[in-house]
Amino acid sequence: MIENRFQGRFLGVLGGMGPLAGAFFMTRLVALTEAERDQQHMPAVLWNDPRIPDRLAACFGNGEDPLPWMQNGIDRLVGMGAGAIAIPCNTAHIWYERLAAATPVPVLHIVQSVLNALRRRGVDRGRIGLMGTSATLGLGLYQRALQAQGYECVVPSAEEIERYCTPCIALVKTNRIEQSLAPALECIRLLRDRGIDALVLGCTELPLALPEPQRLALGLPVVDSVDALAIDALSWYRSESA
Amino acid sequence: MIENRFQGRFLGVLGGMGPLAGAFFMTRLVALTEAERDQQHMPAVLWNDPRIPDRLAACFGNGEDPLPWMQNGIDRLVGMGAGAIAIPCNTAHIWYERLAAATPVPVLHIVQSVLNALRRRGVDRGRIGLMGTSATLGLGLYQRALQAQGYECVVPSAEEIERYCTPCIALVKTNRIEQSLAPALECIRLLRDRGIDALVLGCTELPLALPEPQRLALGLPVVDSVDALAIDALSWYRSESA
Repeated sequence: MIENRFQGRFLGVLGGMGPLAGAFFMTRLVALTEAERDQQHMPAVLWNDPRIPDRLAACFGNGEDPLPWMQNGIDRLVGMGAGAIAIPCNTAHIWYERLAAATPVPVLHIVQSVLNALRRRGVDRGRIGLMGTSATLGLGLYQRALQAQGYECVVPSAEEIERYCTPCIALVKTNRIEQSLAPALECIRLLRDRGIDALVLGCTELPLALPEPQRLALGLPVVDSVDALAIDALSWYRSESA
Repeated sequence: MIENRFQGRFLGVLGGMGPLAGAFFMTRLVALTEAERDQQHMPAVLWNDPRIPDRLAACFGNGEDPLPWMQNGIDRLVGMGAGAIAIPCNTAHIWYERLAAATPVPVLHIVQSVLNALRRRGVDRGRIGLMGTSATLGLGLYQRALQAQGYECVVPSAEEIERYCTPCIALVKTNRIEQSLAPALECIRLLRDRGIDALVLGCTELPLALPEPQRLALGLPVVDSVDALAIDALSWYRSESA
């Protein structure tokens, strides 16, 4: 029995995909909160489970299904009392509908959070450059949502994804973050050559590859899926606490 | 009932003291692991509960007791199946004996981790400069452990702690990390003037104030209590997995 005073809303975070993105998301929840003392921050629990089978291998048909593993994490978070779930992994959202249907609390959708962030940046139309994994982009996760809202999508070709996005993400995942900037900038260069009004970092490793100073230097609105999801999670907490 | 394949060892992390230190600890667990893919990392769960009452206010006699809140977090982590507990907050270790006695799995001790790290750095004697909160240093948490191993401790005076350590930690806790470097360097300067062979960052906010390049520039062994605890947590996992 949990004592009454220890009850209270908290966010459940299904992480581990990869584990650095999960941990980094937790730091962003804190950094994006204005607070003068610890007690003003949102309580949050991170289930950082890197054992979840590879999402790309599953998407392309030859890997173990990650869905039961993701649901296990969500179930444990809900079992602890999480009032909403955030999943700081874009590719995982390929399974979003099934996860949300099996979860008794709200599951935030990272693509919806990116749409919200684009609008906050004043980008409510135009050509949006997308970066992400071969699965996220290949299965049109962002393209469907953005096109439904009237945006045009500028997406690297399958070959360009393999040449720039995939190694960039892999370098972050293997703790070689400084080396990940170069392929990210190469990809951005080719998207800009095709004309874009804003850029979406549609993989939670990518914001680590492109730090704030390099992002500002682009002179282009950049929407970071980690921060977009964190902002929506904090909004959930404030609205539920009110 | 949790399916068998979802069982397996994981680290439970009692965070929230402060929440950035808890999240940062999770990033360090990942950064300190050599891995070529997500699945090679240690599963870990972070209970990041910033509602835990202020540790300093409790130590100095006028604040709510944080112990039941800390035990609640540990109990929930153990309830999820955590195989060991890490607490990335030095001040919280004032309550270590009571927490460990009430917990059926190992609870790592951050001061022991710092001792282990000093020895790994080849510092097995000499004068150790200490930085930390007024409670950690005032109650002699490090001094007792280090002196028992034959080290001498060089500790800022109560007034110096209030002038340098306290604002440094407060700046990290309020997301003004860039401003936190100056008071950290001031404190280090006065410790060095008294002659030290190594420096211990005995508060989990301090490693955020003093980034790697500034640390290297000191030309002095610096032991970071966040990394020390992370290394011991990873050792626990490897030894238990073997």
